Amino acid sequence: MYSIKELQSLISVEVNHEIELINSLEPKNLYEPVGYALSMGGKRLRPVMVLLSYNLFSESVEKVIPAAMAIEVFHNFTLLHDDMMDQAEMRRNSLSVYKKYNENVAILSGDAMSIMAYNYLLKCNTAQQYSMLRLFSKTALEVCEGQQYDMDFESRMDVSISEYLHMIKLKTAVLLAASLELGALAAGAPEKIATQLYDFGLNLGIAFQLQDDLLDVFAEQEKFGKKIGGDIESNKKTFLLLKAIELADPETKTIIQDWIQKKEFDAEMKVNTITEIYNSLGIKAITENYIREFYQTVLNIWEEMDLEKERKSELLEFAKMIMGRDH
Amino acid sequence: MYSIKELQSLISVEVNHEIELINSLEPKNLYEPVGYALSMGGKRLRPVMVLLSYNLFSESVEKVIPAAMAIEVFHNFTLLHDDMMDQAEMRRNSLSVYKKYNENVAILSGDAMSIMAYNYLLKCNTAQQYSMLRLFSKTALEVCEGQQYDMDFESRMDVSISEYLHMIKLKTAVLLAASLELGALAAGAPEKIATQLYDFGLNLGIAFQLQDDLLDVFAEQEKFGKKIGGDIESNKKTFLLLKAIELADPETKTIIQDWIQKKEFDAEMKVNTITEIYNSLGIKAITENYIREFYQTVLNIWEEMDLEKERKSELLEFAKMIMGRDH
Repeated sequence: MYSIKELQSLISVEVNHEIELINSLEPKNLYEPVGYALSMGGKRLRPVMVLLSYNLFSESVEKVIPAAMAIEVFHNFTLLHDDMMDQAEMRRNSLSVYKKYNENVAILSGDAMSIMAYNYLLKCNTAQQYSMLRLFSKTALEVCEGQQYDMDFESRMDVSISEYLHMIKLKTAVLLAASLELGALAAGAPEKIATQLYDFGLNLGIAFQLQDDLLDVFAEQEKFGKKIGGDIESNKKTFLLLKAIELADPETKTIIQDWIQKKEFDAEMKVNTITEIYNSLGIKAITENYIREFYQTVLNIWEEMDLEKERKSELLEFAKMIMGRDH
Repeated sequence: MYSIKELQSLISVEVNHEIELINSLEPKNLYEPVGYALSMGGKRLRPVMVLLSYNLFSESVEKVIPAAMAIEVFHNFTLLHDDMMDQAEMRRNSLSVYKKYNENVAILSGDAMSIMAYNYLLKCNTAQQYSMLRLFSKTALEVCEGQQYDMDFESRMDVSISEYLHMIKLKTAVLLAASLELGALAAGAPEKIATQLYDFGLNLGIAFQLQDDLLDVFAEQEKFGKKIGGDIESNKKTFLLLKAIELADPETKTIIQDWIQKKEFDAEMKVNTITEIYNSLGIKAITENYIREFYQTVLNIWEEMDLEKERKSELLEFAKMIMGRDH
């Protein structure tokens, strides 16, 4: 059994090795941006999930590394194209690909990454390869659907909480879910537990995204990588904003809508005003309650999984870790 | 045995059926542009190649339709993203996707199409599915490489003919080659003949692209769908231009380079001047000779294929048709 830290360092070595390989490919203008996008790093959570899940059933985690790479390359492809669509100039303190290079480079290198993800998965020679490809490809399309809903919501004021949950499920949660199921499929795990792992990842993904929405407003600045209130500034239709619009009296609702419509504004004043409205409506507690519910579902699924406690303990550690509950 | 016309009408019905289906999917803003891109039509040459090749070995062509759809959807995905990268506002007398909708729609709908192509291929339930997926995915990445080389060439004056041939091989020919091989693989054809079909498609693709370069300058306007001289106007590094630069004396070379560098110019004068240079260097005959060589290779491969003449006659008809030699 590998610890999360061991799996992280294992996949990190692999990704770095692949980056070197990719950087040596021609045409340079296609592949160098791919290497750059992959080198921007992050915690490699998704490929770790593939390995972690595989490791529940088998020790030979090296066999599932191509599938883990597929997930990581696909995830970074979505970030690359999303940054361009959202005109997000920075990612993890580096220039995003379309800013460092140009828009054409971002489009085409992203396209290549999406295809490369399949090529990695096609290297994963297991009896379950067909199911793995089907799951991956279905999930990939769902992620595109999620991104479209997210963009659609930008120009809508009437997004319901259920629509929002459907969007983050597609945009964020299904890839975490598929990462866990892919590992299980590769290991030839029974269908029931593969499905449980999918659901574990799905609920964890939703809890994770809701927590991200919450932290954007209520995190302590020093612990938070991004700028506090960034979502408020950019009118992102987060769970917090949608819940506030739902609960606000007509007068408060008008105030929120006015701030959303302002083209020029003092950013600090906007963040402060909206945060105060959140406070007055108890949005923090409501969001925490939602997160708790989804997280509880994660724990319930974990309990029900027909695996020895010790065997599955690292999976629980992982959930705690990404929810920031590991300390 | 089906005739080309029958296969064209068969795939046309299928594509239209899929367009209807796609147009009913949610989110609308993601899938409607996909339906639009697919409805812009064209001659469906590539899916016909899949069916035609399959039909060399088996009558039940309906079984390979998902693979034909995969190729058509992938091809239209590349057109969609290429149009955006090339800022080409029109395609086949319709607005290109990024112009009709917007750039974000073009990026994301294209991404979805690339994934949908795999989903179609995954529906093609044959014993050779794994080989088909590998071939398709390898080819898809090559097409991206070809597009990158093409864009790289825009800012280079020293592109060699061999580099150019490598580029059109990747950008255009490998997808025609793969279309034929996919059909053969799906039908469980012997490896030797599957490879011959790939090579047939590859050489035909190169001849086809060289002919396209030639027609851009020397076609009769009424028979040509596009504007004569469009490649000259936009400084496209075609075979004709590269050959002219290679053969021109220093003085003529300077004239060519001056026209390429001009930001403002009279289009007609540019097209006429460059065409006169082509005439003085005998570029038309040289290009025709190159086309003849690649086409001859196509014919040789056809001759060598271990299939009854009658069985493989439609394949030859197809080659003649796309080279405009069927009358």
